Amino acid sequence: MLLAMDLGGTWCRVACFERLGERLRAVRRLPTRPERGFFPLLEELVAASRALLGGMVPTGVGVAAPGPLDPKRGVLLRLPNLPQWPEALPLAELLAERLGAPTRVDNDANLAALGEHRFGAGRGVDHLVYLTVSTGIGGGIISGGRLLHGVHGFAGEVGHQVILPDGPPCGCGGRGCLEVLASGTAIVRRAQAAGLPADRLAEEGAAAVFAAAAAGDPRAQEVIAGATRALGLGVVNLLHVFDPALVVLGGGVTQAGEALFGPVRAVVASLAMPGFRETPILPAALGDEAGLYGAAVVAAEA
Amino acid sequence: MLLAMDLGGTWCRVACFERLGERLRAVRRLPTRPERGFFPLLEELVAASRALLGGMVPTGVGVAAPGPLDPKRGVLLRLPNLPQWPEALPLAELLAERLGAPTRVDNDANLAALGEHRFGAGRGVDHLVYLTVSTGIGGGIISGGRLLHGVHGFAGEVGHQVILPDGPPCGCGGRGCLEVLASGTAIVRRAQAAGLPADRLAEEGAAAVFAAAAAGDPRAQEVIAGATRALGLGVVNLLHVFDPALVVLGGGVTQAGEALFGPVRAVVASLAMPGFRETPILPAALGDEAGLYGAAVVAAEA
Repeated sequence: MLLAMDLGGTWCRVACFERLGERLRAVRRLPTRPERGFFPLLEELVAASRALLGGMVPTGVGVAAPGPLDPKRGVLLRLPNLPQWPEALPLAELLAERLGAPTRVDNDANLAALGEHRFGAGRGVDHLVYLTVSTGIGGGIISGGRLLHGVHGFAGEVGHQVILPDGPPCGCGGRGCLEVLASGTAIVRRAQAAGLPADRLAEEGAAAVFAAAAAGDPRAQEVIAGATRALGLGVVNLLHVFDPALVVLGGGVTQAGEALFGPVRAVVASLAMPGFRETPILPAALGDEAGLYGAAVVAAEA
Repeated sequence: MLLAMDLGGTWCRVACFERLGERLRAVRRLPTRPERGFFPLLEELVAASRALLGGMVPTGVGVAAPGPLDPKRGVLLRLPNLPQWPEALPLAELLAERLGAPTRVDNDANLAALGEHRFGAGRGVDHLVYLTVSTGIGGGIISGGRLLHGVHGFAGEVGHQVILPDGPPCGCGGRGCLEVLASGTAIVRRAQAAGLPADRLAEEGAAAVFAAAAAGDPRAQEVIAGATRALGLGVVNLLHVFDPALVVLGGGVTQAGEALFGPVRAVVASLAMPGFRETPILPAALGDEAGLYGAAVVAAEA
C-alpha cells in the first residue's frame, strides 16, 4: 500500500494506491486553512491517512508540496505563499514518524511531471518537458527517464525564464518572466487593464478571457495572443535546451484547449530550430491528480 | 592509449592521452579546408592519428564535431557551416574501421562541457552549465554527473534561447536568440553598425570592441552592455531550469575577462530568483583544449 499526498495553498489531498500504476482508489480532501499554521493540518493529514489505510502500514509515503524545498532531506524551505508555516519544515521526518513509513517529499510541479511521465501523456517517453499553467507557471523535466533536480532541488523553474527583458515585474524579483506574461493570473490582470468586465474575470478567471476572445472581443483576443505567444516562446527555449520527445502542458489555463495549444504549436513550428519544430505539444492526461500519481512513484521508491 | 579529435570549420586537431586525466601529450593540427570535401581530410586525420600512436592501437577514439549530429550512432547530420561535407556522414564508423578502435562522436560544445566538468573549472561538481561564446554561442549541460543529450542528441542549444522576441533574425530561423545578441559575430556586427572602425573590427573581432569600451568609447560601451546583458539573461534562464552548482563560460569572447564576467554576474545577482543568485559564474579553465579533454572522456567510455 502506497500513500500519496498533495499539499496546496487551499486544499490538501491524501490518496491510497494499492499498487503503483493502478488508478488511485480513495482520496480525502482537506482544507489547508494556512492561517491556523502547519501543525493542526499535519495532525489532520495523519488522521486522514490512517482512515484511508484502515490499519495497514504503508510501504512508502510520497508528498507533493509547494516549493522551494529540499527533496533530498524532505524539508520545506521558506514558503512565499504560506508565510504562516514554519521555515525549514522537516516534513518528510514529521510524516515518517507518525505514519511509520519512509517518506519522500518533492516539488508539486516536479511530481506532476513524474506522474504524467509514468502514467499520463508522457508514458513510454524518456525525455519530457512538463509545464503547468495555472495561477502561476511551474514545471518539471524528465531527462533520461529521471526527474531533473539540479544541485539544490530547484531545477524546473520554467515559469521564471525571462521572455521579455523589459516586461512587467515578476514576483520572483525579475522582469518579464513567462509566469508574469502567460499565467492565469497574468491573463486576468491584462484583461482587467484592457477593460474586460471585472465581475466575470473575478468569477471565471482566465476562462472568461478565452470565452470573450472566442466571442470576438478584440481586447480579449490581444490578451490571449500575447499570453500564448509568450508561452510558445517559453516552450521553444525549453525544446532547444532539453531536446525532449514531447512537451506536456497541464494546469487550469490549458482547459482552453485549441485556443491555447493552437497558437503555442504555431510559435514552435515557426520559431524553433529545424529538428525541434515537429516536437508534439500535448495536453496533460491526469488533470490535477498528476501530482498524486507522481507522489505515489516516489512513495514506491522511498 | 586514448585518441581524441576536435573537428572545426577551420582547423582540426588530433591528440593522444596516455591515461584519462593526464595532460594531453601531443597534438597535431590540420587545416580543415572544407572546399576539398570530407574524405581527403578523413585520410589526413587517420594518418596524423597513426603518427601520434606510433604503432599502438588506441583503446578508444573520441571525436568532438560540429552539430547537429546523432551521438548514439556517431553520424553527422546536415552541417550548415560545412555544406561541402556529405549529409548523414557516419563519422564514428569511418574512423572505427580505419583506426581499429571503438569510436564515439559528440557535439563539440557538449564535449567541451564534459572536459571542463571532468578536468577543468567544473571539477568535482555534478550539475554544471557550460556556455561557449565565440563566433556563435553553444553549450552543454552536465546533470547528475552526466551530459544531457535529449532524445535526438540536440540538447544544450543554449545559444538559441529567445532573449528578445522581436530582436534581429537569427541564422536558426528564430529572432532575438542569445547567439544573435551576444556572440562575437553579433558584437562585431553591432559595433560596425554603431560606427566603430571596420579595419580593427575585421582584424581583432569582439576584442576590438571591448578595447574601445575600456578606452571610453560610448558606442562600444553600449554594444558591450547590450551583449553582456543578453548573456546574463541567458544565464539566468539556465539557472532557473537546471539549478547547476556553477556556470562555466568559455570561448574566445570570454577572454575579455572582468569586462564580460562583471556585467553577467551583476545581471544574475539582480534578476535571478533567490536561491540562484549566488551561483558562481566561472571562466573555463581548459581554453580551446576543453573539447579534446571531453573527447578523451568519451574515448575512454567507447
